[in-house]
Amino acid sequence: MSLFSDLFLPHISRLKAYTPGLQPTETGWTKLNTNECGYPPSPRVAEALVRELEDGAASLRLYPNPTSAPVRRAIAAYHGQGLEAENVIVGNGSDDILNLLVRCLGGPGAATGFTYPSYSLYPVLVEIQAGHSRVIEFERSMELPVDQIAISSAKGFFLTSPNAPTGVSFANRQLEEILERFHGILVVDEAYAPFARENAVELLSRHPRLVVVRTLSKAHALAGIRVGYALGHPEIIASLDRVRDSYNVSRLSQVAAVAALGDVGYYSALIEKIKATRDFYRNAWMTKLGWFSFPSEANFIFVEPKAQNGQTGLVIAQSVYHHLLSRKILVRAFPNHPLTASFLRISVGTDDEMLLVHQALLAWQPTAPSV
Amino acid sequence: MSLFSDLFLPHISRLKAYTPGLQPTETGWTKLNTNECGYPPSPRVAEALVRELEDGAASLRLYPNPTSAPVRRAIAAYHGQGLEAENVIVGNGSDDILNLLVRCLGGPGAATGFTYPSYSLYPVLVEIQAGHSRVIEFERSMELPVDQIAISSAKGFFLTSPNAPTGVSFANRQLEEILERFHGILVVDEAYAPFARENAVELLSRHPRLVVVRTLSKAHALAGIRVGYALGHPEIIASLDRVRDSYNVSRLSQVAAVAALGDVGYYSALIEKIKATRDFYRNAWMTKLGWFSFPSEANFIFVEPKAQNGQTGLVIAQSVYHHLLSRKILVRAFPNHPLTASFLRISVGTDDEMLLVHQALLAWQPTAPSV
Repeated sequence: MSLFSDLFLPHISRLKAYTPGLQPTETGWTKLNTNECGYPPSPRVAEALVRELEDGAASLRLYPNPTSAPVRRAIAAYHGQGLEAENVIVGNGSDDILNLLVRCLGGPGAATGFTYPSYSLYPVLVEIQAGHSRVIEFERSMELPVDQIAISSAKGFFLTSPNAPTGVSFANRQLEEILERFHGILVVDEAYAPFARENAVELLSRHPRLVVVRTLSKAHALAGIRVGYALGHPEIIASLDRVRDSYNVSRLSQVAAVAALGDVGYYSALIEKIKATRDFYRNAWMTKLGWFSFPSEANFIFVEPKAQNGQTGLVIAQSVYHHLLSRKILVRAFPNHPLTASFLRISVGTDDEMLLVHQALLAWQPTAPSV
Repeated sequence: MSLFSDLFLPHISRLKAYTPGLQPTETGWTKLNTNECGYPPSPRVAEALVRELEDGAASLRLYPNPTSAPVRRAIAAYHGQGLEAENVIVGNGSDDILNLLVRCLGGPGAATGFTYPSYSLYPVLVEIQAGHSRVIEFERSMELPVDQIAISSAKGFFLTSPNAPTGVSFANRQLEEILERFHGILVVDEAYAPFARENAVELLSRHPRLVVVRTLSKAHALAGIRVGYALGHPEIIASLDRVRDSYNVSRLSQVAAVAALGDVGYYSALIEKIKATRDFYRNAWMTKLGWFSFPSEANFIFVEPKAQNGQTGLVIAQSVYHHLLSRKILVRAFPNHPLTASFLRISVGTDDEMLLVHQALLAWQPTAPSV
């Protein structure tokens, strides 16, 4: 019995925390488990940061811009389509934004919806809020259950597109069908959208109950600075802003974000490169290994390892996972649900990293006891 | 009527956001309104950050250490007294920590306590949580109402020491008297404690229901990086950790924090300098102007301007505020409560800044219509 059990709120004592992917502190790992970018950020990021630090980091004594105003202007300009700074809220990573959304929309009397599989942070945020989750499970096809979402009684519904960990993207016409029928706020979490063919930003002007969430952690190669944001109707943004911490984005993160958002050329090339690598290896694993994977529009491949005898499943996936781990290659497994247990999620890294994985997969033989 | 009023939780629609101090974006201001440090951070901060950025900021593509482990070790070493990393949680500023504490301890059925005056963020955090506040008002003497706090039914009680905006510090023997009788968790918010004669860290080993909150924003001259932390019993820290965002402190903020915490010599000298400046001007304003102020153990002076005819009050304080504003000197007023309305809070800046304020105060004449 804890010393403090009568002091903490009952649901807090029962909470299970979100489990982030492993972040090894030693070197020597090929780290393809948290969908970071294999390449460095735009050179303008380091330049802008070093410039900010030139006078002995004197500016760091001052609080940052409390509304991240320069970042919001840069984001509005980056997306265009008539978006203004008032359509943008910036978070300490997109997790901060998702947290604000759950706190504003969900609680003991107001359900929050999401699909399974999708980003595993949503249920944790709902539980912290002592709220109720409405979970809609995908079929194995991973086709979007439009009707089920449209009739959900949730106040807020979170949809990851492209989805994690599958990489499957949902079409704007499907999102519009939901938006026309669903009575709550639809949050489309587009962490991976820069790698997709289509995204929901263009729907914002027609659908006031749509919120699009983005991050600089993936395509902008800036997971370390913690900048994410939401785009939406100014009234929604203003409500989120009342719950947001006043100084939630550091000075250096704001400087880095503005510099990165300005270098469209660098990132366009980077994204094309990553997509080409992704498509090359997805194809290679389908043809050379005969392993199924969903068409990915993200910077990872959700692949289902298959033994020579055709067997797939949790045991096979775990065998490959441990085989890679023994070669210091870190990928992500999702063993707790039948829809995901037979798969591994492999982030798309550099060519060198992908060649290492590829060679390791070719060399894999299911160990006798486990198959 | 808002488009979204039936979607956002009712208490969110009614929320009034916390109002941070003005952060002017133009230059030319003498900014003494948010208790930032007048001096730059340790030179080691810029050195460590530039070193981190040397290879084109490549490390920023990776997520930060999810538990801020190096920062927690540095904080434990900085305080000594048997504290270990497991006694420490690091936040995106101490506001992040205060938010976690309120979310874990307060809600619709569990009251949260604090004094008036104190840090004006507490009631905002309680309202975001749809919780109840138990507010204990100080008398004009600003003496700690030990008995009232000790018998409070709050699950968590937040006490700012040295207090904001008064600068008055509370003695450890008074805190211990509360800790021996109060049944909840006592959070001592020590944002300004490095400027005080005494602090509550040494009480931690004897009082498991004490949590001490600190920040690098004030004495460490790092408001821009957003690093704060709490010290407490490992079980309390573990509970807060379940609600904390996984990657709440950026890579660069972690680097800056470790560098700053290691330079004890630089900051000892800085703190002595600020204390000397504070005591010099507080004394000057008492003797030369005859203006009352509370003995300050913080990096600001809470001073009650007085007209030549002996008058004090809101109108006098506002007259001085606007007089300073007309000279581009920004200080903070608290006009909404009789205990604070007759005062101004002036941050202790550099010698040059303080001389400017001093000369401006000497030159002040109450304008005829307002007195």
